[in-house]
Amino acid sequence: MKYSSLFAKTQKQAPHEAESANARFLLQAGFIDQLMAGVYSYLPLGLRALNRIQNIIREEMNAIGGQEVLLPALQPKEPWEATGRWENPGPEIMFQFKGAGDRDFGLGWTHEEIIAPLIQRFVKSYKDLPVAVYQIQDKFRNELRAKSGILRGREFNMKDLYSFHANIDDMDRYYGEVKEAYMRVFKRCGVEVIITEASGGDFSPLSHEFQMPTEAGEDDIYVNKAGDYAWNKEIAPDLQDGGDAPDGSGPVKEMKAIEVGNIFKLGTKFTEPIGFTYMDEKGKKKPVYMCSYGIGPSRLLGAIVEAHHDDRGIKWPINVAPFLVYIVDLKSKDKDLDARIKQSAVEIYDALQDEGIEVMWDDTEAGPGEKLGNADLLGMPLRIVISEKTMMENSVEWKLRWEKDIQLVGIVDVVEQIKEFVNK
Amino acid sequence: MKYSSLFAKTQKQAPHEAESANARFLLQAGFIDQLMAGVYSYLPLGLRALNRIQNIIREEMNAIGGQEVLLPALQPKEPWEATGRWENPGPEIMFQFKGAGDRDFGLGWTHEEIIAPLIQRFVKSYKDLPVAVYQIQDKFRNELRAKSGILRGREFNMKDLYSFHANIDDMDRYYGEVKEAYMRVFKRCGVEVIITEASGGDFSPLSHEFQMPTEAGEDDIYVNKAGDYAWNKEIAPDLQDGGDAPDGSGPVKEMKAIEVGNIFKLGTKFTEPIGFTYMDEKGKKKPVYMCSYGIGPSRLLGAIVEAHHDDRGIKWPINVAPFLVYIVDLKSKDKDLDARIKQSAVEIYDALQDEGIEVMWDDTEAGPGEKLGNADLLGMPLRIVISEKTMMENSVEWKLRWEKDIQLVGIVDVVEQIKEFVNK
Repeated sequence: MKYSSLFAKTQKQAPHEAESANARFLLQAGFIDQLMAGVYSYLPLGLRALNRIQNIIREEMNAIGGQEVLLPALQPKEPWEATGRWENPGPEIMFQFKGAGDRDFGLGWTHEEIIAPLIQRFVKSYKDLPVAVYQIQDKFRNELRAKSGILRGREFNMKDLYSFHANIDDMDRYYGEVKEAYMRVFKRCGVEVIITEASGGDFSPLSHEFQMPTEAGEDDIYVNKAGDYAWNKEIAPDLQDGGDAPDGSGPVKEMKAIEVGNIFKLGTKFTEPIGFTYMDEKGKKKPVYMCSYGIGPSRLLGAIVEAHHDDRGIKWPINVAPFLVYIVDLKSKDKDLDARIKQSAVEIYDALQDEGIEVMWDDTEAGPGEKLGNADLLGMPLRIVISEKTMMENSVEWKLRWEKDIQLVGIVDVVEQIKEFVNK
Repeated sequence: MKYSSLFAKTQKQAPHEAESANARFLLQAGFIDQLMAGVYSYLPLGLRALNRIQNIIREEMNAIGGQEVLLPALQPKEPWEATGRWENPGPEIMFQFKGAGDRDFGLGWTHEEIIAPLIQRFVKSYKDLPVAVYQIQDKFRNELRAKSGILRGREFNMKDLYSFHANIDDMDRYYGEVKEAYMRVFKRCGVEVIITEASGGDFSPLSHEFQMPTEAGEDDIYVNKAGDYAWNKEIAPDLQDGGDAPDGSGPVKEMKAIEVGNIFKLGTKFTEPIGFTYMDEKGKKKPVYMCSYGIGPSRLLGAIVEAHHDDRGIKWPINVAPFLVYIVDLKSKDKDLDARIKQSAVEIYDALQDEGIEVMWDDTEAGPGEKLGNADLLGMPLRIVISEKTMMENSVEWKLRWEKDIQLVGIVDVVEQIKEFVNK
């Protein structure tokens, strides 16, 4: 894509409503736009990054047998009354309102109440179990104060997976599988997380969270000595930095963190109220066990920016970058040389497009300061600069966003080398 | 995909809530599930068909320079007050409610009020125009009575495109381009439409609709003699079947039709209230002209089923079918023969999977009546049957869902022939 054709350009100043690094850079770079507190539009580059995250999640969910569905955001009152969550937590979390005909509606902030009766209609026998279904969809929360950019929103994108099992053993087995799939998702997205014990909130007595340590986080966690397990402060309120871990494994370290995923063993909490049972091998009615698992792609997008930026802008990990390659051509006062620079940029851009490599070219007439500043702000992994200086050596500048080094690469070799870089 | 692993199986009976062909077949075949009137869940096969429709639309929108964004469903009151649509049509169409902090919210049923101020922030000069942006997203309408399956819902999927122009000529030019792109979308989806003049409703004095003639439609249109243009009854209330067309082209034919798309020349209706202007070449402030264009992928899915079914089930057009090939193996009482049938099914299925061809295999133990009935109900384009009879001739049955003919094709040739069929 040519930068000149993109309507959502970068802004010179960070917008004043930006209260966190993710909001500041995503807004200033033209990835997102704020409609109101906690509600954002995804502009072309932001949507590309969001889609790449969603596709990584989709691949990992499919790999563990998840079947993709799409459930409604608009929901009737009745299934929420059956589990008691229409009242509690009720409107504290859920937008609830009346529609035509005095009918009660709520907006989905999670989908246990919708998916359990749906799966119940299809599952009759032990042969129909286990089942795992997921969706990627916008959810809503009636937050009084939404903040931290896209980390906590009134409208946010969510991948929610639900699994249904014939017994506790099978539930435990699949819960473990999902835990590993989640770890693969975060790794592929360039995010390091620590599995953290937490309270299950409105869902279950206990849950596991995937916490990404960062000063920008809202959660306090205590990390064990090995650095591979933690406890959320909410379940260990008396623990202190340096205190002994709940499992006796030695001193813990207190850290701020962002919760980028969570998983819940729900047991029969949402199946029992609706009488969701199945017939076992002996024709006996048995309860169905259920889990739910969440990753918020929009929050993960924000977390990635919190983890990967410097004071000049974003440093996108390769797997989620909106474009992999960013070409900058710098003007020369020498007319001939300038034409040759432009021509090289066109040729490299066209060759990469032909190869199906995702490339953006800043083809504008802006000066070098603005162009290089934009390149850093936008943060695509590989920056290729073509200038007077590089043309003298029949080469281009090759720079990775997260490295200081600049290399010269011959113009004749650059497309081949980019292909190798991309396929690595 | 193996049918046995799909959780959302077909049902023996058409569900009683089905009041139209699209609802009856999509529900019975396990493509969708009704949560309440006008609100449906998309199950794995329904979501696949919906995604294929969305991707056809996406390709055609990208081809005319549309840039994809994703706007919020949750919206503040203020921009709707600026255009007067918070009050009129107001809650008659829009879900409106209070959230935490006594704040007013509405759910998006269209996005002119959101997109115009957003584009305004990026467009300053004639150099920034034209701009075309679109999104594919769920919208909401406060319908008193939702009916006709997924044709008219309280929550529905929408592709909405908005374009912004420096003058009326450029607006007219692009409006024509979109009209052609829309015709390509419908053609690719296997739907024949007639461009129809209509009132612009809450948008503009005049609009064009894309109407698909069918008895299941809610709209009345008068089609001209050539059959390529029509007038909606709402703008020609005195016209009768056989009466002279408004353009004097001769007698019209009255038909029922489903509106599957609409396009509006909005002019300055939504840009003027917010002072959205640009600087022209001479530094003079000029008004920005705007159009909006809609296709509902979920309604289009329903319309496709209305247009393509018989009394046994759906007949998916190739471009939108959830799977292209549907393999059925029929049990034999001869143990050896049965093993060979199963083995052939496995081999053909695996070979097609390896080729990346979208194939479903009914690998269950059901009898021939149920298996062939399911194949017709589900309606994938190409059915391959392997049975005692075909094994005797080392072949399989080849049948297209929309044809009566059954051919025998040699087992050794079938994968090659399917590859040819798919690439046609």
